[in-house]
Parts: sequence; C-alpha cells; structure tokens
Amino acid sequence: MQDQPQKEELYIVDILHRVGIKSSPKETYQALTTREGLSAWWTNDTQGETKAGGKLQFRFGPSGGFDMKVLEFRPAERVLWQVVERPKEWIGTKVSWELKQEGDYTIVLFKHQGWKEPVEFMHHCSSKWGSFLMSLKSLLETGKGAPWPNDIKVDDPQKDTPG
Amino acid sequence: MQDQPQKEELYIVDILHRVGIKSSPKETYQALTTREGLSAWWTNDTQGETKAGGKLQFRFGPSGGFDMKVLEFRPAERVLWQVVERPKEWIGTKVSWELKQEGDYTIVLFKHQGWKEPVEFMHHCSSKWGSFLMSLKSLLETGKGAPWPNDIKVDDPQKDTPG
Repeated sequence: MQDQPQKEELYIVDILHRVGIKSSPKETYQALTTREGLSAWWTNDTQGETKAGGKLQFRFGPSGGFDMKVLEFRPAERVLWQVVERPKEWIGTKVSWELKQEGDYTIVLFKHQGWKEPVEFMHHCSSKWGSFLMSLKSLLETGKGAPWPNDIKVDDPQKDTPG
Repeated sequence: MQDQPQKEELYIVDILHRVGIKSSPKETYQALTTREGLSAWWTNDTQGETKAGGKLQFRFGPSGGFDMKVLEFRPAERVLWQVVERPKEWIGTKVSWELKQEGDYTIVLFKHQGWKEPVEFMHHCSSKWGSFLMSLKSLLETGKGAPWPNDIKVDDPQKDTPG
C-alpha cells in the first residue's frame, strides 16, 4: 500500500546514434537525399521521390523493406522521414537526421523515434542502424559503403533483417 | 493555464542493442566475465575482479575509462554491471547482458539503462556500444576483436571517446 499517488513513468523508446564523418554537411546531406547516395550506403534497391512529400521505397530482397514519406528537409542541416509501410513496429515512427559541422567533420545525430515498446526487434534495429551509419561514414570517407546486399550482418545471415 | 495538476513524469532512456554471434552462450559468457575476454574486445587495459561484488576497471588511455561493479551473473545467461566511476552521465547506470541460444547462434541482448536524459553524449555511446558489440562478435567468430586502442572510430579519432 502506498499513500502517495504513483509517479507516471514516461518511457522514451528511441533509437539514438551519433557519428562524426570526415565530410562536409553538404556532401553528407546529398548521401541522405539522393537515390544515388542512399543506394550507396543503405540498400542498392532504393526507389521513389526524394523531395518533400515524396515517398521513398527501400527494399532488401526477400526480407522486404520500408516506405518512407519525406516530411521535411533543410539542405545540409536536417532530413525527416516517416515510415508509412511495414514492418508493423515501424509504421508511424519517424527517422530524423540532424547535421552540423565540427572542424573537418560533419556530426550526424540520428533518431528513430516513436516506438511503442522496447521489443527485441527494436534492439536489433538499433544495432543495424549503427552498422548502416558506419556504412554511410565509410561511403563519405572512402568512397565505398556497405549497402544491402553487401551490408554488415549483425545476426545470423539467414535471419538478419534490414531494420 | 491548466486546470489539472501536472503529472510528475519520470523519463527513462536506454541504449539497446541485439547481435547474433556464431558461438555458444558459454563462450560468449566467458568473453564478458574474464579479464582475458574483456581485454580482447573492449579495451586491452582491463583490470580488477570479475566475481560478483568485484570492481572492474576499464581504461582507454588519455580518454579515461569506467569502473563497473559486478552486481550479478548467471553462467551462460546473464551479466549485470553498475557504473561506479566516471563519466558523470554514466554513474549509477546499469549495463546488462542477456544471452540465449538460437540454433548455432548466441543472441546477445544488451541494455545500458538509467540515463537521465537523451544527451548528445548518449547518442555517441549508443553508436560506440554498437561497434564494440561487433568487436565482441568478431572476437568470438574469428578469434580477433577490435579492442581499444585498435577500436573502430565512430567519430573524429581525436575526439572519439570509449563510451
């Protein structure tokens, strides 16, 4: 028994990442907002419209993929997507990219927000986003990323999913 | 103006990861609970006692490091540490490792819990933990990890910190 009202807990379930890339914010932004750029670090099967209001289709072979609506972008500063199709845990969640310059580096602050619960799949997606951010870093620093189907596997390759 | 008392909210933010490693839970557990194992994927400067109640010192050269108290362990299943020294954002936070077998793989569910706020440093730590988990995976699958000082840099090497 307790005689005080219980505090309401607000559990924030976000995937957060931060990487520093030896590249300009302008080049980093290009890699996030052109089909050519996205194909070179996330998945070589990237289709759709990269403008605001457009819909991007990211596919990963038999594992399926995601459709993202481009909600917002500000050149060299910010990109915001909302997931409109599959998987069910992702629908409605938002993916944001904030860019800022620090010396010779562009700092990328990444958030995948709006998860309802910290399910095991979310843990997986956190690790997988981390490895795709390293692919983005590698693309911009060396000219070579690791997009699907050559992505770094964080799990059994038979079970590894893109998200 | 609002006519209802504001609810007191308690924010909870966690770093979550999940990797699948082609290894047994027993071997994975060894890599998390022996100085030899920890030195081979996290930092080659690992000291201290790995038993329950013991204190482990992880050091990363001029960047400093962490002291962890071993709160709990269950062979091949679970390890729980609490950060007792530095950096300030880490003090009191807990790091847990849950292991389970799936076919030829050990699934590692990782949580770094108890952050007070989703500060920029937390975004960095999320990416850095992700890359150290890949170092753990590599150690167990190939015999070679990437512990500090040979860790994968997620930022400008001059500024990259271990946490």
